Order: sequence, then C-alpha cells, then structure tokens
Amino acid sequence: MLESLKEEVLAANVDIERQELAKLTWGNVSGIDRERGLIVIKPSGVPYSKLKIADMVVIDLENRKVEGALRPSVDAITHVLLYRAFPQIGGIVHTHSPCAVAFSQALREIPCLGSTHADHFLGPIPLARVLTPEEIREDYEGNTAKVILERFAGLDPLDMPAVLVAHHAPFIWGRSAREALKNAVALESVADMALKTLALNPAAPLIPEHMLKEHHDRKHGPGARYGQESP
Amino acid sequence: MLESLKEEVLAANVDIERQELAKLTWGNVSGIDRERGLIVIKPSGVPYSKLKIADMVVIDLENRKVEGALRPSVDAITHVLLYRAFPQIGGIVHTHSPCAVAFSQALREIPCLGSTHADHFLGPIPLARVLTPEEIREDYEGNTAKVILERFAGLDPLDMPAVLVAHHAPFIWGRSAREALKNAVALESVADMALKTLALNPAAPLIPEHMLKEHHDRKHGPGARYGQESP
Amino acid sequence: MLESLKEEVLAANVDIERQELAKLTWGNVSGIDRERGLIVIKPSGVPYSKLKIADMVVIDLENRKVEGALRPSVDAITHVLLYRAFPQIGGIVHTHSPCAVAFSQALREIPCLGSTHADHFLGPIPLARVLTPEEIREDYEGNTAKVILERFAGLDPLDMPAVLVAHHAPFIWGRSAREALKNAVALESVADMALKTLALNPAAPLIPEHMLKEHHDRKHGPGARYGQESP
Amino acid sequence: MLESLKEEVLAANVDIERQELAKLTWGNVSGIDRERGLIVIKPSGVPYSKLKIADMVVIDLENRKVEGALRPSVDAITHVLLYRAFPQIGGIVHTHSPCAVAFSQALREIPCLGSTHADHFLGPIPLARVLTPEEIREDYEGNTAKVILERFAGLDPLDMPAVLVAHHAPFIWGRSAREALKNAVALESVADMALKTLALNPAAPLIPEHMLKEHHDRKHGPGARYGQESP
Repeated sequence: MLESLKEEVLAANVDIERQELAKLTWGNVSGIDRERGLIVIKPSGVPYSKLKIADMVVIDLENRKVEGALRPSVDAITHVLLYRAFPQIGGIVHTHSPCAVAFSQALREIPCLGSTHADHFLGPIPLARVLTPEEIREDYEGNTAKVILERFAGLDPLDMPAVLVAHHAPFIWGRSAREALKNAVALESVADMALKTLALNPAAPLIPEHMLKEHHDRKHGPGARYGQESP
Repeated sequence: MLESLKEEVLAANVDIERQELAKLTWGNVSGIDRERGLIVIKPSGVPYSKLKIADMVVIDLENRKVEGALRPSVDAITHVLLYRAFPQIGGIVHTHSPCAVAFSQALREIPCLGSTHADHFLGPIPLARVLTPEEIREDYEGNTAKVILERFAGLDPLDMPAVLVAHHAPFIWGRSAREALKNAVALESVADMALKTLALNPAAPLIPEHMLKEHHDRKHGPGARYGQESP
Repeated sequence: MLESLKEEVLAANVDIERQELAKLTWGNVSGIDRERGLIVIKPSGVPYSKLKIADMVVIDLENRKVEGALRPSVDAITHVLLYRAFPQIGGIVHTHSPCAVAFSQALREIPCLGSTHADHFLGPIPLARVLTPEEIREDYEGNTAKVILERFAGLDPLDMPAVLVAHHAPFIWGRSAREALKNAVALESVADMALKTLALNPAAPLIPEHMLKEHHDRKHGPGARYGQESP
Repeated sequence: MLESLKEEVLAANVDIERQELAKLTWGNVSGIDRERGLIVIKPSGVPYSKLKIADMVVIDLENRKVEGALRPSVDAITHVLLYRAFPQIGGIVHTHSPCAVAFSQALREIPCLGSTHADHFLGPIPLARVLTPEEIREDYEGNTAKVILERFAGLDPLDMPAVLVAHHAPFIWGRSAREALKNAVALESVADMALKTLALNPAAPLIPEHMLKEHHDRKHGPGARYGQESP
C-alpha cells in the first residue's frame, strides 16, 4: 500500500541525515495521500541509515495506525493536526537543525534579510509560543500543533512553509515530502546566514518589500520563471 | 575474552572520529562488564582508523591490565574511578569536541535552553572545578575523577550523563558504551546550539521547568513513549 | 557544438556542490567562447548531481537560446550583460555561499584583512547597491547586472573578480569558468576568515598596502612566480 | 633519491586537504633529510588530489633545486631558513586554515585556554610582526622567515612548534613532516576552540601554569606516559 509515497518519504528521511539537518534520530518526515486520507511516517527512534521501506508506518487522520510493525514517530499527532489544518500541504518535516534551533531557543523569529530567504519564505519565519504547564501535561505533541496553528492565523502555509517552536525546533512543510525536505534545507541555510549577518551587523535591515516579493514570485508566483516546465 | 564488549567499544571509538567528536587521537571510549568487574578501553595514542579488536585493552577496577599488548588510554584511571562511583553506568566517553571544550574553557556550564538538551540531560551540564597544583602533581588523572565526583554530589549520573572539566574537556557516560557515545554526540550538538543561541540572545531564558521534565521523561521516564519496544 | 567548453562548465557547476558553495540548486556557472560569441550556461533548477553534458544550454550575447532542450538559468541575462561589459573575462559563477551572503545581507564590503584575500582580490570586495522598486519591476536580472557595472566604474574586473549584491549574494568571474570557480572558493573562504577575524577584533586593521600589492603580484603580476610555467 | 621521505611528505601534503587545513592549493609541507642536508617540498600550485611522488621537488639548504621537473613552492626559502635556524625540526607545514588565519589577521596571539592547546603547545601561539615595505620589496619570503626567527628569540621550537604571521597565516613544524602535520591539525582545532571560548567569555582566564606544564609533559616530557612505547 502506498508504495511510491513510502519511497518518497523514506528518501526524504534519509536526506535528513545526508543534509545534516539532525543528529542521531532527531528528525522525521511524513507524506500524505490526500485521496485516501492516509499518512506515511517514519518509525520512532530508528537510525536513518537502517530505515527500510517496510519500516514505514501508515496512519490515518485520526492518528490510528493502519499499517506497519513499528511505532510511528512520537511527533505523529503534530503531523496529523497540521495536515488537518493545512489542506494545501502534502509533506511535513521536523528537524533539530542547529541554526534554526538557535533562533527557537533565542525566542527570535528569523528576519528576512535577503534573497535566499525570500526565494522560499515570504517574510520572517514565525515563532510559536511556549506551551503552558497545563498544555504540556495534557497533550504535549497535540498542543505543539495547537500553538503552531494559533500562530498561523492569517498566514498561508504555502507562502510560509515553516515555523519555529519556542525552546524546541522547527517544523517545515510543502506540497510534498520532497518539497518539504527542500524547504527544511533552505530554512537551516537561511538561519545560518542570518546568524552570520547579525554577527556582522546587529542592525542589518530587512530585505526591501519589493525585492522580497519579486524573489518569491520568481519561484512561486503565477508567472514563475525558475526551473523547468515540468519540475 | 569479552569479545562482544570489545566489538561495541571498538565501534564506539571509531564513531568518535566519524561523528567528529575529536581530532587525531584526542578521545577514548570504554565499556564495563559489571559481572566480571572488567573494563575494555582504547589503547593510548592509536589512530581510530587503525584500531582493531585485538588492540583493545582489558583492565580491572584497580586499574591493573588484565589483557592486551598495548598500554591503555592515559585516562584509564579516570574511567575506573567513575565506574566505581557510578554503578548504574556501563560505558564512558572522553572527547575534545570543540563546542563542549569551549564551555569548559570559558568556565561556564551549558545552560538548558531547549528540548534537544532536555531530551538527553536533565538540567545544565555541570562544570567540575580546576584542579589545584597539588592535585595535579600527585595524581592528575585520578584527581580529575575526584573533582567530577565532588561536583556530582546529589546528582544522578543517568539523569545527567555528562560533565565538563574546567580548562579541559567533557566526560560523558551511559548505560552502555553505545549509549555513552550517543550522549557524547548529543552533548556536542547541544553545546553548538547553546553557543549560537547565546550569540543571538545573551539573555536567552532557560527552558521552562515543566518542558524540561516532559522532554526528558518522554525519552527516559517510566512511561517513555519514544523509540521501539526493545530498542 | 562547444563540447570542451560544455565539459568545463559542467565540471565547474558540479564543483559548486562539491565545494559547498550552494545548497539545492542555488548557484550556476557559465563560460563563453569569445570567438563565436556563444555562452554555455547551466539549465535552471536542475540538481548538480543530475547535470549531464546534454543539459547544458547555449545562448548568444543577446540572451537568445541557440542550443539545448532546457531553459537556461534565470540569471542568464546577468551573465550576458557582464560578458558584454567585461571583455577580459571567460567564465562567471553565481553562488549563495553563506559567508559571502552574510556580508551581502549585512550591507558590508569584505575588507582585505590578509594575504589569502590579497592573493585573489586586489582590495575590498565591492558591494553593489539595492535595486529600486522600478528597477526590480522592469527587469530584475538585467538591472542586477546594471548595479554591478555601476559599482565597477573604474575597477578592473580581473584585479577584482567578484562583487556582492546587496540583500542577495555574490557574482564571481575569471578568465575561464574554471578560474571563476576557484575565485568563488577563495571568496567564500576569505569571507569566512573575515567574519572570524572581526569577531576576534572588530577593529582589525586592513592589510598594509605594500603587502596587498606584493601578494597579488606574486600570483597575478607580470613577473608572477606562483605555480608552474604552463598552469 | 629520498623515496621514503618523499612518500611521507606527499602523504602529509594530501592530508592538508583531507584535514581541511587549506582550500585550493594554499598550503605546503616539506621534510628534511638532515644527514644529506636535502629538503623534499611540494611543487608550487599543484592540486593535492593530483600530487604524485615524481612531482616532489628536492632542494638543498641554499634553496637550490637538486631534483624534480617542477618549481618548488614559492615559500621554499621560508622553509629553508627555518630548517637552518631550528636544527631540532624535521618537517614544516604552511596552511591557510581559517581559524588560525583569523588570529593572524586580528593580530592576536592564540591564548592557551585549555588542555587541548597545552597538549601540543607550551604557551600562547606567538605572532610574528608585519613586514615593512622594504622587507617585502627586498625578499618577501626570506623576510617572512626573518620575522618568525626574530619572534622566536628565547623560544624552543619543539616546545612551541607553530607561529602566526601577521596579516598572513600560520607556519607549523615538528620533528618530522608527519608530526608537523599533526601539529597543524592541533593548531587549527585549538584556534577554533579559542574563538568559541572567547565568544562565550571574552575574559576567559588562561589555563593555570601548573596544568599547562602537566599536560605538555604528559605527552612530551622526559617521563611521557601518552601513547605506546615506540610511537
């Protein structure tokens, strides 16, 4: 079941390690088949180098296991709730990539300082608030999705395919698992560049609005001219 | 003798280089067989790429060599004294990983700023004090263990499986050599993230207490739900 | 057509990834055959690991496609205009290498602080100004070349084979695609060293004029004594 | 002639790239046969990945070529003069490793902040002064050796096997080419750790004198107990 989706999700999970987005087993990718309402997700705690197609876990939009011998990622419910709230998206990535984590821990949004950022994210990367003791006690992973969605009121998840969770780490998404992984690579790179820029100039100005829009539209707007006809 | 322990200790030593936790020969791993009271440890000064099973040195809890043609790591007595004081642990790693060393040299503990840290360490990474000239003259490596144990009065070594030695470097441990190595990877990553966080926000707040506990328990508490049934 | 130039341009594009000058598909290299007035350039959005000779696109100095099934890089017009303005150059590289981008985003030129810089660039790396909203709306990529050329009034493009575009990233060139790629490696390394130098000493003095000239001439002056007779 | 020395020098040159001590062709290693008074050195400008035994150049202590088809490194005279002044040493390395360069460009010595540094270098890494315009005009590479030797008045080159040249980069040496390369790896690592330490604590205290001496003697003193009997 869902063999090609499993292959894509497996490849994106392996890329977490290859792209140095997480150490040990600190990240996971999922992808969704919207027609069937089924999600393929990484099993919990399995090293990327040992992941096999048969290890992939299938869950539904109620976070019930449908297929697979292993437990799904402990973050599965966060993925499920994001898929339910953002019907436009097809893949989700969670990492602990160090520069994005640094902004999460510093409780700072990542300001949009240049074209690399604008190519992927239309504005500053939002920061979701710290969970309350009650929210953590009740349902830590579920309420992680809650504070993300709270922060995304009025934001389009395809214009802004990433969020930082305070004191934690980023969640990133896209129209597919493959695209979500690319956005995760972009996020870490953009965070790295922002760290270095702010070291050189703590008052570095934001990219001008007209340049932000141009760069984003060049890749994502209606008349996008980046890449090939059928990407 | 102790073949499977030797294999585990060898693999963890090789991982020191693979995980970029030390340059040249600046790190070592040991593992203990508690029933026999025997420790397998890296030989001194041998490059990781040349280590073989037969090079592994076996010592006892009096730091006497039991098997092996080579000299054990010069830090063997530090390992021995930690094993004697912490009966819960099964493996010890010593590295000179650069970000953890930076905190050791800055004489600062690593504050717990986020979930990556909380997943592995229940609170700030402690700093053991500088040795006195007498302590160094008498028994440098033995007294390194002494100041670590002094600092760990009242701390549980499984809740806090790492320490920074002032002006020196970290020692890390776990229930096995393999787990100790994972904790060493986590420590360096957490130190890297803390360095970057403090660059972005020198007054970055600590992770709230309830979130620290939740993250730690999710992986290590009685009802841990991370990973698979038999990890 | 232009097979050997295609091979050189392909190899230089692959080196963008190998030398860690760009993530994903964020960079491109071109080379020109001055006799025929034809440029070989990377196709837009194709991953470096999948690039083949047959994917290379040939355009002329009016930015018209002459050969190739794929779309050329979206930055092709910037390359074309630089080739037209700088007849001495034979290759152009565009990257988003993180340290050079940090200076671009901080709106700072890269000061010449040492011999590594002087070996490749005769003075500070210039910064081209931010484009106006009108310039972006009219012709973003063409006007990127315009602000670069504006900044290069009075500069020799072989003495200074690189520029930073404000809020964007560097363009780098050389007498060939291969040399341009080497200059791109040098630029990122020099930017990295400058970042670290300024962290250690925000008032780090510039390299003395006589040392700048000596280092540059040693490699590039009339009696250059670096390298072999026929490099 | 000198086949085994050539092999050692070739291997150490290749390690410059493998250990990330220089980009492109920005570094070189030499070794000396003291009995014959002959030096084997890297040819100028040849990429590390293409170096062959037959490319190695043999020169004498008057900097005259004795064997080899290629030009020796442009820094050959610096090597020669150091070999003449320091009869204890058997190998020399020059790199542009980024953290050591940062201290050279910041015009700061690398303070001895911890045991990693003390294991290899007995005190702060000295900084040789900027050359005057006359010294550069007359004989740049020869006078580079002159300012190094000026700075080393009263220093033992085996206790302190490295120097930073102001606005330039480090030279490192040892009893052999192989040992010099190890010291070059140690220097870059120590510089990296110092940069990070000073970012965390600009007033980080020096390692106490008694700890400096203990760590150095443990590896290099008369009763050294690090490593194996015949290293």
